[in-house]
Amino acid sequence: MLYFVEIDVRIPDGIDDVRLADLKEREKAASAEHQRSGEWLHLWRVAGKFGNISIFDVTDHNRLHEILWSLPLFPFMTLRVVPLAPHPSAIERAPA
Amino acid sequence: MLYFVEIDVRIPDGIDDVRLADLKEREKAASAEHQRSGEWLHLWRVAGKFGNISIFDVTDHNRLHEILWSLPLFPFMTLRVVPLAPHPSAIERAPA
Amino acid sequence: MLYFVEIDVRIPDGIDDVRLADLKEREKAASAEHQRSGEWLHLWRVAGKFGNISIFDVTDHNRLHEILWSLPLFPFMTLRVVPLAPHPSAIERAPA
Amino acid sequence: MLYFVEIDVRIPDGIDDVRLADLKEREKAASAEHQRSGEWLHLWRVAGKFGNISIFDVTDHNRLHEILWSLPLFPFMTLRVVPLAPHPSAIERAPA
Amino acid sequence: MLYFVEIDVRIPDGIDDVRLADLKEREKAASAEHQRSGEWLHLWRVAGKFGNISIFDVTDHNRLHEILWSLPLFPFMTLRVVPLAPHPSAIERAPA
Amino acid sequence: MLYFVEIDVRIPDGIDDVRLADLKEREKAASAEHQRSGEWLHLWRVAGKFGNISIFDVTDHNRLHEILWSLPLFPFMTLRVVPLAPHPSAIERAPA
Amino acid sequence: MLYFVEIDVRIPDGIDDVRLADLKEREKAASAEHQRSGEWLHLWRVAGKFGNISIFDVTDHNRLHEILWSLPLFPFMTLRVVPLAPHPSAIERAPA
Amino acid sequence: MLYFVEIDVRIPDGIDDVRLADLKEREKAASAEHQRSGEWLHLWRVAGKFGNISIFDVTDHNRLHEILWSLPLFPFMTLRVVPLAPHPSAIERAPA
Amino acid sequence: MLYFVEIDVRIPDGIDDVRLADLKEREKAASAEHQRSGEWLHLWRVAGKFGNISIFDVTDHNRLHEILWSLPLFPFMTLRVVPLAPHPSAIERAPA
Amino acid sequence: MLYFVEIDVRIPDGIDDVRLADLKEREKAASAEHQRSGEWLHLWRVAGKFGNISIFDVTDHNRLHEILWSLPLFPFMTLRVVPLAPHPSAIERAPA
Repeated sequence: MLYFVEIDVRIPDGIDDVRLADLKEREKAASAEHQRSGEWLHLWRVAGKFGNISIFDVTDHNRLHEILWSLPLFPFMTLRVVPLAPHPSAIERAPA
Repeated sequence: MLYFVEIDVRIPDGIDDVRLADLKEREKAASAEHQRSGEWLHLWRVAGKFGNISIFDVTDHNRLHEILWSLPLFPFMTLRVVPLAPHPSAIERAPA
Repeated sequence: MLYFVEIDVRIPDGIDDVRLADLKEREKAASAEHQRSGEWLHLWRVAGKFGNISIFDVTDHNRLHEILWSLPLFPFMTLRVVPLAPHPSAIERAPA
Repeated sequence: MLYFVEIDVRIPDGIDDVRLADLKEREKAASAEHQRSGEWLHLWRVAGKFGNISIFDVTDHNRLHEILWSLPLFPFMTLRVVPLAPHPSAIERAPA
Repeated sequence: MLYFVEIDVRIPDGIDDVRLADLKEREKAASAEHQRSGEWLHLWRVAGKFGNISIFDVTDHNRLHEILWSLPLFPFMTLRVVPLAPHPSAIERAPA
Repeated sequence: MLYFVEIDVRIPDGIDDVRLADLKEREKAASAEHQRSGEWLHLWRVAGKFGNISIFDVTDHNRLHEILWSLPLFPFMTLRVVPLAPHPSAIERAPA
Repeated sequence: MLYFVEIDVRIPDGIDDVRLADLKEREKAASAEHQRSGEWLHLWRVAGKFGNISIFDVTDHNRLHEILWSLPLFPFMTLRVVPLAPHPSAIERAPA
Repeated sequence: MLYFVEIDVRIPDGIDDVRLADLKEREKAASAEHQRSGEWLHLWRVAGKFGNISIFDVTDHNRLHEILWSLPLFPFMTLRVVPLAPHPSAIERAPA
Repeated sequence: MLYFVEIDVRIPDGIDDVRLADLKEREKAASAEHQRSGEWLHLWRVAGKFGNISIFDVTDHNRLHEILWSLPLFPFMTLRVVPLAPHPSAIERAPA
Repeated sequence: MLYFVEIDVRIPDGIDDVRLADLKEREKAASAEHQRSGEWLHLWRVAGKFGNISIFDVTDHNRLHEILWSLPLFPFMTLRVVPLAPHPSAIERAPA
């Protein structure tokens, strides 16, 4: 099932540099792992923001929560989650 | 170039049925045409709303405006447009 | 899967009385049908509002959209949809 | 009497780990106690958030305030409280 | 039980004068009746607004909804309802 | 003259316990004093919030400001002030 | 006593021209009358808006409400009312 | 003096086609005239909106108001006006 | 030229007392100086807030910015600036 | 391609003076460099704010993000990005 997720990140000023670098590295690794599994279907940077717009494809709400909750930067995120349904006007397309 | 576009539609009560059916049919045709050309890359229904979440892939801002402005339901739409950049954590994926 | 849905209804002034009565009757029937099927799990009135707070239990996003979209009063509704996951602190309870 | 309560939690960065673990453990215990007494009727996790959506069934406003105010994480919560009335379209259902 | 209720009224332009006068007269009568019964405890005009700030004292959420829903101007109202509890710093006062 | 005042309090995490206890004690004393003088006419707890809904009866704007500004918790408050006028539908009532 | 009042006006499209001209003329007359009495102390146009920013000097909340409520364009206005107190840093100035 | 002006246009559904065409033609003429005079310095279309983002260079607030107020589509506009000052980091540039 | 300026002040908890007293004293002096020069035309306290509502009369946007930017409490202020034009309904008044 | 960018800056209280001076100097240098290259087309100060309103002219979304992300004050900024298209009513103008 598909979910649109919009994520804004706000790092508090004064955070320890080493800790932040570690958080970012582990965030990147976690993100890569979920992309490889096919659950983090799309990941785009919002131009001009520390944040992203993503599409997740997971089995259910609980799995989505599990993934987001375990992200290393989760405590600094504001998230918006929107369940997506097939659109009646969407056409069938051959695979790219 | 990629743009995230979020569209909410509000049809005024009392609109003529024939006119509305015609508008919707032409909306569907326009949408299909832009999907076929590859410019309307993704089109999802927001569950519980008359509206959609879309990704456009067009040459520039002007082309995006041209497509949206010419949609038959445009006068009833509220739109949010967000320019998307590649995300540094996005992985390369083989085509589906 | 569970969804929290919050619905506000705003009927435009001047709507035909017969049409409104018919809409409300069909709304009530649709609501009863989905409650009986077990998909509309909870339905509460928000005190002081024409609206409700509901919990749906459906197979997926698409089924939720189908139910909401087909409600006779849907064109007059503003909806908020929130996907719900099990809470780690929720306890097992014997059936009521 | 029923109340819908929506709770968002925001833990300040830099909080002591031991203190936070203690707060969470006591929060879980308090929540379990009120669930067992039947006053915290439903407790769901909002997918993608540190927070929950709950239904309380208590004798009056004061008892609701007492329960919420005494939660160990209360100082970090933003709460929305909505009084719920029976809905005229809600059907009688046999106990589950 | 006490509830704070804030009411804004917006009459659509072009409403029939006779109908509006009738609505207002019946609104006034309903309001007086609930004040006399002691359920509409306080009623103040918000300076510069078509609207009021009120305190209701009723048996439960359902009774509050019943009163508000039956007000002749209800379809033109936007309402905010807040449940009130005794304040620990409130002092006992002799009756006025 | 009557004023509706809505107060939300947010205590910063990490405040010294002794200082906070002192602030709360002095807040309670100030509140009691203004209630006894008749200027703080009503004081209710908003269920589920650190905050209150109050009615003040003071000679003018300046006196209201003086009272609020001098409250020990004022630096942690967000306040909303609304001037109240007599409502034309309010009935005369015998003193309680 | 001083009040800051911010007024936005929104005339519904399709209003009868003669009626609108009459409303505006009477609005201007009412405004002039209250300026002459000294109660409508300042009246400025917000650049780029159909609306104004004003300072009223009246005896009490009720008189302010009376003046605003009786303005011919009141039904099309959105108003914000803010009670003003003397500022401790304001200096004495000789009359202009 | 420079002003940033952001304009959103919302044409009511059901407006007469001839009237709308006339309004748009006169709007275009007025806009061209003010651009030629140098007062409407920049005019851009917001991609995906019926609206624009503009920079005006006029003698004072009053002249800005005069221009905006006289625009044929003014009654359908929502405007935001922001006074602009020279930025200390702006560099001198040779004319284009 | 006239500007309406609305200022909210939020002092962070834990600021050094000596520093704060110094800031406030210099704020008061700066304000007095601009009032004496005639540029800070009106200064009122918003009842119940640490903040003010002011009218400035300065030569241009840049001068307004200069004054506000140099206020000792500027880093703790949230400001709203609105350009004011003469109102067509404002009457000529003899000096007070 | 043109982008409207609105930037608000909020420096946390207590930041080290030397660090802040260094950040501002490097911000100014970065801004000057992008203005010289022609990518930061316009830069204005919003009167009364620590912030600016800017027009960027860059090759694509990614380049815009690169520039903004690398600004020394970026961690303290709130940004709004709006893609701009040519306006059909904009006239051709000779170079200044």
